[in-house]
Amino acid sequence: MQHKTETKAEIVLQKENNFSEWYSEILKRAEILDIRYPVKGVYVWYPYGYKIRNLVYGILRSLLDNEHEEVQFPLFIPKDELMKEKEHIKGFEDEVFWVTKGGSTELDIPLALRPTSETAIYPVFKVWIRSHRDLPLRIYQIVNTFRYETKHTRPLIRLREITSFKEAHTAHVSRADAEEQVKKAVALYKSFFDQLAIPYVITQRPAWDKFPGAVYSIAFDTLMPDGRTLQIGTIHLLGESFARTFDIKYEDKDGSLKFVNQTCYGISERCVASVIAIHGDDHGLVLPPKVAPIQVVIVPIVFSSKEESNNGGNPVEEACVTVYEELKRAGIRAFLDNSEDRPGAKYYRWEMKGVPLRIEIGPRDLKTNSCEFVRRDNPKKMHVPLNEVAPEVKRTLEEIQVSIHEEAKEALRNTIYHTDENIKGAENSEEKMAELRRKAERGIVSLFLCDSERCGQELEELLGVSVLGEAVYETEEGEKSEGECMICSRKAKRVYVARAY
Amino acid sequence: MQHKTETKAEIVLQKENNFSEWYSEILKRAEILDIRYPVKGVYVWYPYGYKIRNLVYGILRSLLDNEHEEVQFPLFIPKDELMKEKEHIKGFEDEVFWVTKGGSTELDIPLALRPTSETAIYPVFKVWIRSHRDLPLRIYQIVNTFRYETKHTRPLIRLREITSFKEAHTAHVSRADAEEQVKKAVALYKSFFDQLAIPYVITQRPAWDKFPGAVYSIAFDTLMPDGRTLQIGTIHLLGESFARTFDIKYEDKDGSLKFVNQTCYGISERCVASVIAIHGDDHGLVLPPKVAPIQVVIVPIVFSSKEESNNGGNPVEEACVTVYEELKRAGIRAFLDNSEDRPGAKYYRWEMKGVPLRIEIGPRDLKTNSCEFVRRDNPKKMHVPLNEVAPEVKRTLEEIQVSIHEEAKEALRNTIYHTDENIKGAENSEEKMAELRRKAERGIVSLFLCDSERCGQELEELLGVSVLGEAVYETEEGEKSEGECMICSRKAKRVYVARAY
Repeated sequence: MQHKTETKAEIVLQKENNFSEWYSEILKRAEILDIRYPVKGVYVWYPYGYKIRNLVYGILRSLLDNEHEEVQFPLFIPKDELMKEKEHIKGFEDEVFWVTKGGSTELDIPLALRPTSETAIYPVFKVWIRSHRDLPLRIYQIVNTFRYETKHTRPLIRLREITSFKEAHTAHVSRADAEEQVKKAVALYKSFFDQLAIPYVITQRPAWDKFPGAVYSIAFDTLMPDGRTLQIGTIHLLGESFARTFDIKYEDKDGSLKFVNQTCYGISERCVASVIAIHGDDHGLVLPPKVAPIQVVIVPIVFSSKEESNNGGNPVEEACVTVYEELKRAGIRAFLDNSEDRPGAKYYRWEMKGVPLRIEIGPRDLKTNSCEFVRRDNPKKMHVPLNEVAPEVKRTLEEIQVSIHEEAKEALRNTIYHTDENIKGAENSEEKMAELRRKAERGIVSLFLCDSERCGQELEELLGVSVLGEAVYETEEGEKSEGECMICSRKAKRVYVARAY
Repeated sequence: MQHKTETKAEIVLQKENNFSEWYSEILKRAEILDIRYPVKGVYVWYPYGYKIRNLVYGILRSLLDNEHEEVQFPLFIPKDELMKEKEHIKGFEDEVFWVTKGGSTELDIPLALRPTSETAIYPVFKVWIRSHRDLPLRIYQIVNTFRYETKHTRPLIRLREITSFKEAHTAHVSRADAEEQVKKAVALYKSFFDQLAIPYVITQRPAWDKFPGAVYSIAFDTLMPDGRTLQIGTIHLLGESFARTFDIKYEDKDGSLKFVNQTCYGISERCVASVIAIHGDDHGLVLPPKVAPIQVVIVPIVFSSKEESNNGGNPVEEACVTVYEELKRAGIRAFLDNSEDRPGAKYYRWEMKGVPLRIEIGPRDLKTNSCEFVRRDNPKKMHVPLNEVAPEVKRTLEEIQVSIHEEAKEALRNTIYHTDENIKGAENSEEKMAELRRKAERGIVSLFLCDSERCGQELEELLGVSVLGEAVYETEEGEKSEGECMICSRKAKRVYVARAY
């Protein structure tokens, strides 16, 4: 829907100076989410926002569908099942919403709203998996999940109802196969975020911050405009821990019964938040063409009704319709804005909504049988002959997709600060620490830190950061060297630290 | 997924004699839903079932997307909002699940899990709608909804978690526009169920059985194989009742403030239940091609490895691959079953899963450059030249779609019993009543009944039925006559009655 009675909002958008306000205003003005729902931490998807959501999850689905099958498990997890995996429940017990009543009847067993579905799915894996021939088993679901967040909530980022949590769960005959699956999942997530033009760093979370119940956790983080990192995807090697808790065994070729080896990996609607936050500017959203509900908007520039052609039609409007129909036929998501608003109002609206490309056609353009392309991501304008519009649109959209991605990747690279020397605990001058703190205010710092939780927590306090973990699956060079722990001087690996959401 | 270790189940399927058992077995053997989840009234969608679900809801979405916009509202409804519409909450209060705790904290305001979303959506309509220019507003969402069902639950039919409830909500400037929308919704639902090949009767529910808060309710019912009707879609004219409760007003052209006029209409996954129940037979599912995840399965008939051609390949398998690729290119959902099972095991499996068409290719077929088509819905077999496979498949799938639909429509027509005389209360002979009761055991009875709740309930008790309501939007002739109420002899209209789910 579009609020036809809307008046221009008055706050001047300033993404760099006040990201938090910018983000809230963008969600409202671009009609992504309505935050006026009367329950804390839950929001309403507007039609336009939901279209973006569907395109984003469409990409994720098509990647997953290659090797996974989509299923759906119930929202309710009975208390006794949720409590089975002791380490797991410790990680979630403060965050679980409980259904305790049906009508006016107290339920015998309280029902948890899934915070994540391991304990819903794995009892069923136990009955689905019988033989090595049933493995590997790879499923996923996209469902609403719930967390009783007591901290400050924020749309798409910290929610009480995550409306679109994608969780994949796999089971394998061996640890080696499960680790192979972790690598595949990393490749899949890379491909997904690349298509969203979202840059990321991939780290292995410190052992003291892994997913409750996992052997280890791999995470994708991106950097938000306020200098804080946002965790946008996680991949967990579960090993046999859940298999032992839920007794998930298969009969191997030799007839012996063995526990399966598992992985799970999740992405929430933070992926949509990152698209909004990273690409947007002070004029509104900037959508990568792949997830833009409208990829091209056509705006007729009509000054008066005198422009009518001999057959009574308006040649500008006719040219617009022709272009529109041609783009539709070419499979491009086009929209012709022939509303009665002034062109300026139309520009404002579609810039706010992040439409990657605008085509303007006016009487002067018609004299040269051309039109004007205006890109959303940069101020370039181009004159394009009318008979070349469709291929030129395709080419330009691809160029925009790449350009948005490159720009975002460069911005992330520029904010990663690599300490090029070993800064050691006792020897650290206040000056050096102050510099690192300043760096961590605006980005990611790469430094040497050992595995111990004690050093990790001391560093987190010293710098006011979170330890993201060791950089893994890295394409950058010069990243994997070893050094001495900044705190205790023992042997250590490079880790990323940053202020995190 | 497919259970490779599955052994043939032992119960002989008998849809006509024991529908209830047949239905449970089919859900399991065709891998639609797993009913072994440890919470009453909630189930697990298998991959195959979920694919059917997605195709069914894909049709619904594409119909709705013409004039509606998809949104998503939160699952939680705060108690005070839910309680605002007095008539509405009376209809739902015994069925609501309540979230009362987050972690170990009691919530200040208990949160209802939506049983339906009027009270979640309409407070937001109040802020979305300001002017007549914002109307009509037509939105829909497909979400999980919850009912604390205390009766016997049944997968897809009577659930505690309805995983895919489609609810549309519209607002208009006038009652006339809202009534027009009711008609449009009826047309949309007709088109939807026609594409599922599901026959229906359309009635206006008795005033004493309408949706709580509605002016009137229109319902689509179909007939299940056990002679009971299943409500598969409802459309409600809400008038101004919710607008007054939630204060939803618009500014009209003359500047005056007026209440909007509303409708809402819903379809649950009972639409999937009806596809399974109505078309299936004792060999398993029979899917209409439009919602079949696999429309064509290709089965190579390979007797030995001696059939190898000179270049080392197997000519039968090569022909199968060629056909498979051709069908894929033609946009047909084809599957080539080149597993090592015997052909008989393959037939059993794909018949159970309801694949509309099977293509067999063996050495004898290759000698005549042909293959054999075997339809799932009837025992017809056809020899088809290999170079005509793709167009013949298309034609045959269309024929199957129509044929399944016609058969189902005829079956419904044959079970509707029209009383052709006025059977009046006091004068009713026991014999006549017994006959009606017998008719109502296996189908729908059309008779004369006045509007009063008292007569309705008396009749329901007498015949052991539910009153579906007055037949409306009817295409059948000879249906709309008036007569005398069977109970009180006052002026009455024809109504449908039946035993209902």
